[in-house]
Amino acid sequence: MKDPEFEPGLEFAKRLDARDPLASFRDEFALADPELLYVDGNSLGRLPVSTEARMREVVERQWGRDLIRSWNADWWDAPRRLGEKVARLVGAGPGQVVVSDSTSVNLFKLAMAALSLRPGRERIVSDTFNFPSDLYILQGCIRLLGDRHSLTLVPSADGISADSGALFAAIDEDTCLVTLSHVVFKSGYLYDAAAVTERAHAVGALVLWDLSHSVGAAPVELDRWGADLAVGCTYKYLNGGPGSPAFLYVRRDLQESVHSPIWGWHGQRQPFAFELNYTPAKGVSRFLAGTPPILSLLALEPALDLTLQVGMDRIRQKSVRLTSYLVDLYDAILAPLGFTLGSPRQPDRRGSHVSIRHPDAYRINRALIEEMEVLPDFREPDNIRLGLPPLYTSFADVWQTVERIRQAVVERRHLRYEAVRSAVT
Amino acid sequence: MKDPEFEPGLEFAKRLDARDPLASFRDEFALADPELLYVDGNSLGRLPVSTEARMREVVERQWGRDLIRSWNADWWDAPRRLGEKVARLVGAGPGQVVVSDSTSVNLFKLAMAALSLRPGRERIVSDTFNFPSDLYILQGCIRLLGDRHSLTLVPSADGISADSGALFAAIDEDTCLVTLSHVVFKSGYLYDAAAVTERAHAVGALVLWDLSHSVGAAPVELDRWGADLAVGCTYKYLNGGPGSPAFLYVRRDLQESVHSPIWGWHGQRQPFAFELNYTPAKGVSRFLAGTPPILSLLALEPALDLTLQVGMDRIRQKSVRLTSYLVDLYDAILAPLGFTLGSPRQPDRRGSHVSIRHPDAYRINRALIEEMEVLPDFREPDNIRLGLPPLYTSFADVWQTVERIRQAVVERRHLRYEAVRSAVT
Repeated sequence: MKDPEFEPGLEFAKRLDARDPLASFRDEFALADPELLYVDGNSLGRLPVSTEARMREVVERQWGRDLIRSWNADWWDAPRRLGEKVARLVGAGPGQVVVSDSTSVNLFKLAMAALSLRPGRERIVSDTFNFPSDLYILQGCIRLLGDRHSLTLVPSADGISADSGALFAAIDEDTCLVTLSHVVFKSGYLYDAAAVTERAHAVGALVLWDLSHSVGAAPVELDRWGADLAVGCTYKYLNGGPGSPAFLYVRRDLQESVHSPIWGWHGQRQPFAFELNYTPAKGVSRFLAGTPPILSLLALEPALDLTLQVGMDRIRQKSVRLTSYLVDLYDAILAPLGFTLGSPRQPDRRGSHVSIRHPDAYRINRALIEEMEVLPDFREPDNIRLGLPPLYTSFADVWQTVERIRQAVVERRHLRYEAVRSAVT
Repeated sequence: MKDPEFEPGLEFAKRLDARDPLASFRDEFALADPELLYVDGNSLGRLPVSTEARMREVVERQWGRDLIRSWNADWWDAPRRLGEKVARLVGAGPGQVVVSDSTSVNLFKLAMAALSLRPGRERIVSDTFNFPSDLYILQGCIRLLGDRHSLTLVPSADGISADSGALFAAIDEDTCLVTLSHVVFKSGYLYDAAAVTERAHAVGALVLWDLSHSVGAAPVELDRWGADLAVGCTYKYLNGGPGSPAFLYVRRDLQESVHSPIWGWHGQRQPFAFELNYTPAKGVSRFLAGTPPILSLLALEPALDLTLQVGMDRIRQKSVRLTSYLVDLYDAILAPLGFTLGSPRQPDRRGSHVSIRHPDAYRINRALIEEMEVLPDFREPDNIRLGLPPLYTSFADVWQTVERIRQAVVERRHLRYEAVRSAVT
């Protein structure tokens, strides 16, 4: 897969930037600190410039001046309006996506709904590479339903992906639900979602995809896959801001046969009739719960508009070029320093971040943050994740990041830091 | 209760404003439209001036410049930090309140927790005056638990409050949970929470208070009442902004014996150890779920600081003066026009809004909004709610509001509007 013209130096990176059709979109983001190499957009995406103005408008005009009238004018339908914008990024036709609540709460709603649709089946299949946060939610669902279900976590042989033979074997006639991260948060491995969905459907199981690490970065085709359910985060590659509300997808033909376990008034058929008994709204709106956090919700909209303007095809093309370039640099510069690659080599099996592994990864990561003006993140036990969001990452950024990692290790700067873990992130 | 000096005119209102010790706090809020009489702060509180600057800082500096580093510096502990601030407004000692999710989601968590603590009991007691949104959540919990529980809704004899004899009689040895709105959203009736809690505890039931219409407006003493659980909204009298996250309270000695039904990673003991199995955090933090909406969460903080600066005693004193003045004006001006009072006359049984009822209330409300620069709200079937948040409502506002209502009715302006309901709010 190596680029035949590849050269390990800044000049080559600049040539790649010069032919990058998305290079100008970097200016759409606030780059308050030009020296900073931010390679953690897979945790928290950057601030779009247009969001700054939108937030002032929402706070100062919509809330400050128009007050309660803004509910009718703009806010009430925002979960559906933004849902339709997300839908276009995940290959979903209209009426199947809403934005509301956190990824965890949405996963809870949809997992409970899925389990109610397969009452006789007891097995939930996931993998050891799924977000622990997703596994916790599933464990809570199992407890809530009286510990009747089991959670099978398919392990990994290579530290990068679950063994696909083992995964397919685990999905059996007793399986009610298969739920996986489409792109694995540690390794960036990208599942063949169509194949997994097909296998699950062949035995009558439902599939729930967590798109948190793929939406806005990798191709998602929910309708084409025949996916049943999906959730996803909007503050990573969608740049919605810290804790921006998550989305959920319920396939159209399932919508009338399932309920949310949380009978919220935004999911009620006539919320302002103030009837004493709950009747679910038609369609995916029934999965809305309470009043959404409007400031955080609307901060997402300019970011979605920007992503739609560029289009997922171009975003994916640049993502593949960025991560492939990083893998070439890894081979040339980092492997000789004792790193191993924690991500797939094949671009079609990779999201938009690359993990590099090293026995001293925790300390190297600390040195990068404290001394080198590089912001990656660390994931246990030995992964440094380098996220390369296509809208604002340049090839020069990638080169400089690798160069600073090289410098930190060669100069043994990481040895100044304790190996003991501290702090929260 | 009538003020012996009462006079129905603007001069008297201005004299009341001149001796109001909280008058200057009006300037702490954005008053973009000085002609507007905003009496719907019980639905959406006004924007504090300090929140504008804070939001720019959060968006442009914390997110835009500091990026992921802000999680450690400020964001991770925000649900607990804000929870402790709310705690001081609701008479709760430390370690019992967090801010997260919506009121509905928090009610779901706590109602499910409560029902798990009283497994042999089947009756949930509430009233027909509770928020329908709360009743929907309870109905959903009942369904989720296999329709084993019943929901008893104590009715009202006078359209203002549930019959207290009937309420006390309904709370029996089979009751697992009593859950009520501390201040009733339609009438503003304020429950004797200590007495209800005592009655519930006498038969072994738990009590869950919804404080949405009382926090920031009326005295709340959760610890003193011996309350078990509580939830509340922050975008009404706390001025946190549209859909700002809600809070929840779990009494300290219950915390280690209950789980949230939603096993979220922010409620996990060591969220960044990325363990595959959930272990709940110690204390009330276990009721956190997914990543909170940081922009909406932090917008609440300046508002909480302002409320704490003024103090609940002074806020309550002004609230009683405002609503009592409005009742005096009702007697003098509105009753002769065919209105009836939809709120208690005794100040100690009243929150900070007053409902006036009229057969043409819907159309009068429309005329007030469309022509009179008054923003109240309407609640079925015949209530116009006039919310008087003490921090920014002047006595002159109250007088002018009544004067414009009088004018609308005398000039028969409401007859220009259809009685057919439209729109969402």
